Amino acid sequence: MTSANPWQTARRTARMNPSVIREILKMTERSGVISLAGGLPSPDTFPVEAMREATARVLRDQPREALQYAASEGFPPLREWVAEHLGEQGMQVDPEQVLITTGSQQGLDLVGKVLIDTGSTVAVEAPTYLGALQAFAPYEPEVVAVPCDDEGPRPDALAAAHGARFLYVLPNFQNPSGRCMGEGRRAALVKAAQAMGLPLVEDNPYGDLWFDAAPPAPLAARWAEGTVYLGSFSKVLAPGLRLGYAVAPPLLCPKLLQAKQAADLHTPGFNQRVVHEVVRNGFLREHVPTIRARYKLQRDAMRAALDAHMPAGCRWVVPSGGMFFWVELPESIDATAMLPRAVEAGVAYVPGAAFFASQPRANTLRLSFVTVAPAEIARGVALLSQVLRQQLAGGAA
Amino acid sequence: MTSANPWQTARRTARMNPSVIREILKMTERSGVISLAGGLPSPDTFPVEAMREATARVLRDQPREALQYAASEGFPPLREWVAEHLGEQGMQVDPEQVLITTGSQQGLDLVGKVLIDTGSTVAVEAPTYLGALQAFAPYEPEVVAVPCDDEGPRPDALAAAHGARFLYVLPNFQNPSGRCMGEGRRAALVKAAQAMGLPLVEDNPYGDLWFDAAPPAPLAARWAEGTVYLGSFSKVLAPGLRLGYAVAPPLLCPKLLQAKQAADLHTPGFNQRVVHEVVRNGFLREHVPTIRARYKLQRDAMRAALDAHMPAGCRWVVPSGGMFFWVELPESIDATAMLPRAVEAGVAYVPGAAFFASQPRANTLRLSFVTVAPAEIARGVALLSQVLRQQLAGGAA
Repeated sequence: MTSANPWQTARRTARMNPSVIREILKMTERSGVISLAGGLPSPDTFPVEAMREATARVLRDQPREALQYAASEGFPPLREWVAEHLGEQGMQVDPEQVLITTGSQQGLDLVGKVLIDTGSTVAVEAPTYLGALQAFAPYEPEVVAVPCDDEGPRPDALAAAHGARFLYVLPNFQNPSGRCMGEGRRAALVKAAQAMGLPLVEDNPYGDLWFDAAPPAPLAARWAEGTVYLGSFSKVLAPGLRLGYAVAPPLLCPKLLQAKQAADLHTPGFNQRVVHEVVRNGFLREHVPTIRARYKLQRDAMRAALDAHMPAGCRWVVPSGGMFFWVELPESIDATAMLPRAVEAGVAYVPGAAFFASQPRANTLRLSFVTVAPAEIARGVALLSQVLRQQLAGGAA
Repeated sequence: MTSANPWQTARRTARMNPSVIREILKMTERSGVISLAGGLPSPDTFPVEAMREATARVLRDQPREALQYAASEGFPPLREWVAEHLGEQGMQVDPEQVLITTGSQQGLDLVGKVLIDTGSTVAVEAPTYLGALQAFAPYEPEVVAVPCDDEGPRPDALAAAHGARFLYVLPNFQNPSGRCMGEGRRAALVKAAQAMGLPLVEDNPYGDLWFDAAPPAPLAARWAEGTVYLGSFSKVLAPGLRLGYAVAPPLLCPKLLQAKQAADLHTPGFNQRVVHEVVRNGFLREHVPTIRARYKLQRDAMRAALDAHMPAGCRWVVPSGGMFFWVELPESIDATAMLPRAVEAGVAYVPGAAFFASQPRANTLRLSFVTVAPAEIARGVALLSQVLRQQLAGGAA
């Protein structure tokens, strides 16, 4: 009998870390703290009544099918719906190219599994979505950041991605920066990527949440054979269903499917049928505009509060959709170091440093405007500004 | 503009393959074929009424929580229920050790991600569960088979697993062999594994489906710090919910959790709450015996049919639970080669070769007795026997 630890873990575990955001969210669970940290959709937007009806119908009309094992590709009518939905956005998708995933986070994991070797270069934006960095990390890539501006990756700076297996890009109302790529930028980026033979992984969880005008067509509509596109029902229906999808060039579909099958056999068939039941008759055409209207009001509240309260030397771009403001603070401020004081004062945010694959910018932070009501947003931003002013005064003292 | 394929896939994709069983199942979808191939639980056992009530209650009482993002570890009351349930089987489990997974297939993937390096040795049974081989393959292990008998891995043959990261073992009514490890074998196997410092990954999807007496306590009850235990709701409730769990020694929990978070953030909270709502008041104590009684009748039907029809030179062990008979045919028969004739004759099975990590035994096949009714089982086995006799006669001619 040995009492020693018999386990040897894989080398890749050294790259795996707890989510910084997760740790912050724990800290902000203290009652009384206004959390502008979370990226949680407002539960007021969850279509509970439609869900009730859909679950009842599925369990009445197709219980045996909904509760049985199912195809790894996904529920065929839902794959067809996705293909049609993306067609309305300018993509030409065969339902056979659609793989239903357990949230779009799983799409990121499958992409990593199929495309990344140890030491492969993977290119990302700066800043980029933290969950993508976490999904790719176990496959041990070298992650490089492409220089970005207020529209995302700069086409003239794509050389940084030379030899990369792909460029991971989130063109619509990016998490964390809130930025959106315009038509010209999309065209130029795709052209430059094509010229380099640099494939794209396009993530689009927020594209439907536009406030004034729909964003330009996806990158995948411009270069279908060079783009894997990831979508999600989390922001337009509800995240607790864990339902997303990946659309890949036909060449990649078999390997993505095999990776999916090995990962969890298939996404819950019950959830797929319920969501199909909710969306199949055009429900989202009525529902999504109500989310847009709500989030726009909250975006406006945050914009007004930032304008009213933030000290000089701060910079932000007003997002035209999505869930986040990205704020650049004066260079002297370290947003991570400031967070405990902010929480003490009653407001929480996510420091921006976590969102950089390399060279984190300490003077940045992310504010979500979707989870708390406008009055709370105003109060939270006012508190944040106070803490910031104190920091600036302290630094100057 | 390049029109060349810009994608380079990871080396591991060479190890990934479509499931043989999946391909066979497609072949057997022809109407009129009695399929003894599938490993699908009988949909007659799905507790549809309980599911209806539970979904209605969850969407009435906790819709916002059920539809929102949730903790990666799982829904706390469900983790507590699992810990308590396993306690009744002799394990001592802290709910903090329980990770809710998207089916137990995901548990296998997470185990592979956290424990397997390229070239690591992983030991399995012969034969073993195909889905485990598929889950481990992308992590590029060297898979070795431990010599087995009718009770599973032989403790005196564990040297074959020397240096392995773990031994993957399915002690209760194994898929595909149907065999069950007795008390003495469990004790001896754990003792030998402990002496070698060989950790165990114990998979238990079928343990509740016993026909006469409950199987002995799990391996994890004997060596908690050296065993990762995987469980599932697929066979006692319904697989379409994709709900399983992993119980790991505390030392491994953080890395498994990080792997889980990267893989799909969390298992659908809606499904977790619905299942907890179904099971929390002892529903399974009434429900599982009805599944046992049904499957026992079907096992008996298959036993009688095999006894009545199969030609001399075939061997099987009557399973005392689970879903499968494993049949060894005369050495001259290749079950894979025989399958098209069997399907033509109107019956399908899974050739055994797919279940071997190495040195496949061509003269083996797996028969499931849970999906089709007793009369169909009898007819299917009779057809199979006819085809087999023709093969034997042809071989002798």
